[in-house]
Amino acid sequence: MSKEDKRNKFLSVFPQLVDELKSILAGYGMTQDALQWYENSLNYNTPGGKLNRGLSVVDTYAILKGKSSYEELSEEEYFKLAMLGWCIELLQAYFLVADDMMDKSITRRGQPCWYRVPEVGEVAINDAFMLEGAIYCLLKNHFKKEAYYVDLLELFHDVTFQTELGQMLDLITAPEDRVDLDKFSLERHSFIVRFKTAYYSFYLPVALAMYVAGVSDEQDLKQAQDVLIPLGEYFQIQDDFLDCFGKPEDIGKIGTDIQDNKCSWVVNTALKLCSAEQRKVLDANYGRKNSESEAKCKQVFDDLKIDSIYHDYEEKTAQNLRNMIQNTDETRGFKSQVLTVFLEKVYKRKK
Amino acid sequence: MSKEDKRNKFLSVFPQLVDELKSILAGYGMTQDALQWYENSLNYNTPGGKLNRGLSVVDTYAILKGKSSYEELSEEEYFKLAMLGWCIELLQAYFLVADDMMDKSITRRGQPCWYRVPEVGEVAINDAFMLEGAIYCLLKNHFKKEAYYVDLLELFHDVTFQTELGQMLDLITAPEDRVDLDKFSLERHSFIVRFKTAYYSFYLPVALAMYVAGVSDEQDLKQAQDVLIPLGEYFQIQDDFLDCFGKPEDIGKIGTDIQDNKCSWVVNTALKLCSAEQRKVLDANYGRKNSESEAKCKQVFDDLKIDSIYHDYEEKTAQNLRNMIQNTDETRGFKSQVLTVFLEKVYKRKK
Repeated sequence: MSKEDKRNKFLSVFPQLVDELKSILAGYGMTQDALQWYENSLNYNTPGGKLNRGLSVVDTYAILKGKSSYEELSEEEYFKLAMLGWCIELLQAYFLVADDMMDKSITRRGQPCWYRVPEVGEVAINDAFMLEGAIYCLLKNHFKKEAYYVDLLELFHDVTFQTELGQMLDLITAPEDRVDLDKFSLERHSFIVRFKTAYYSFYLPVALAMYVAGVSDEQDLKQAQDVLIPLGEYFQIQDDFLDCFGKPEDIGKIGTDIQDNKCSWVVNTALKLCSAEQRKVLDANYGRKNSESEAKCKQVFDDLKIDSIYHDYEEKTAQNLRNMIQNTDETRGFKSQVLTVFLEKVYKRKK
Repeated sequence: MSKEDKRNKFLSVFPQLVDELKSILAGYGMTQDALQWYENSLNYNTPGGKLNRGLSVVDTYAILKGKSSYEELSEEEYFKLAMLGWCIELLQAYFLVADDMMDKSITRRGQPCWYRVPEVGEVAINDAFMLEGAIYCLLKNHFKKEAYYVDLLELFHDVTFQTELGQMLDLITAPEDRVDLDKFSLERHSFIVRFKTAYYSFYLPVALAMYVAGVSDEQDLKQAQDVLIPLGEYFQIQDDFLDCFGKPEDIGKIGTDIQDNKCSWVVNTALKLCSAEQRKVLDANYGRKNSESEAKCKQVFDDLKIDSIYHDYEEKTAQNLRNMIQNTDETRGFKSQVLTVFLEKVYKRKK
């Protein structure tokens, strides 16, 4: 099945899930305008992204079960995995609606951020809550009878909390309006991105598939985590690098991390290596909302050869991860191929 | 034990819970500034209220176990119940931090709303998330081994979602800036207050205590719910009534429901009974931010004798609830006294 077909098959599950959530509201006796509001929020905020996280739940399960293609999964099997995939997308929607408010962002996925839709405004906070709430409604409806039900609940709780912790650390380290580069460091950057991104984007989809496939020994979950968390960090470091050094025509946007005072890998690496003179330039120009200041920061990054440092980091990290993956213990049913597929998706991507 | 002693004993558990949550963050390797931020948010937002919801978990458990006083509970028993009580207070903190942002409120419990603390701002959204997240950390630490662990998780999920549904319905029915009394009705009011208030404030504490006490047959949970949800509605109707007709020296604040376009029992009752003339007065004056308009609405309420209608409602409702409570089936261990205690706390309160 082509990548596009896989995506369309996954997307075709979403309307069923919306209907199911609307039935829950209807079952409580909720009025039509409330059902409509919730439907609008679900449709506006959930399916518009790349859906990589959701799709990788199905992909991982297929690998663990030794299925070479989606067609070998029964309809029922596919549906359950897709449902968990959508639960991650709902979790992401919950984070993004809130992050956009906290970052005062303008657009998301080519449309105005939900809180900027005129009739929505601050109500978006409650809508974010209800995107998260949808996860537990769906898990209850589809997984209550499974022996691993409580594992799924705890996994979502833990990963949600870890992501919120990462978001908290990011917000207190790099408030948009108060630049203080003394708070930054590569160690702190590693922390923020592992918590804010790696757990829910990399570990969560694999762990969910592992529970359903019955390959969920503590040691196997640990093997997955030990590779997927650094891989998620690598992914985010790429993101940070591309924001500054990527071509707009490749990444589909113009990077704003410098002007937004982001605690990015690029600035943290520069802070580690720069001279006292260069540090003064960064202190005076990083996080300022004008392109002259931005250009001065970029000049420092160029002088420090951040791009070549990045390429060294990338090669070293990919090699480390490949070594770890090669040592995967498959005796209990876990498959190193799960991890290889993730690594290959990330390695040397340009967008 | 006096009411004040009970409250102090309950409050003495809170610092332990904060330490426990900080240890979880420290266990993840989080930095000191992150621990401090979370501690500040927990302390600022959680323990400042009346704590009735949290305390009633302990009270209900004691009644179900036939203990006449707190001293008869073992330290361990008390601690577990208090922990669940604090989980409700954390849930409430999560709602209130967010509600204050959505309502653009200024103060809460005699201090600035959390989002109005200068260094906090919009970060309050993520802090609200982490107040909710604390619940599942604590439940996992203290109840994972209990047979009813998954019941507690589902109860919190369900009640959280119900409260969010009530909040959604309230927000779309009565946006602060667009007055449309056609959207109001007593039926809708009943819906909003049952979902937004009654489930988490009345049903949740009792259901939690029932699970721990092992008195949690479906039929018993239903008996509790059948009384506590209408009782919670009655409580909120009182609140609405007191906002308009209570003496500021009794209720400790000056009511603002009329100016804030609140979908209150008072205006909904007036809308049901008013003449076409009176309706015009309400349409032109309800939800307007000035005291002349407010006075005109109050005049309509007085002319319609809303206070006497309220007192009839109160007597009728209390009588109905007493009758239901009298018919409680105690054969499986549930006690009608649980419900009586709640009713007596609400009946004819003036603040």
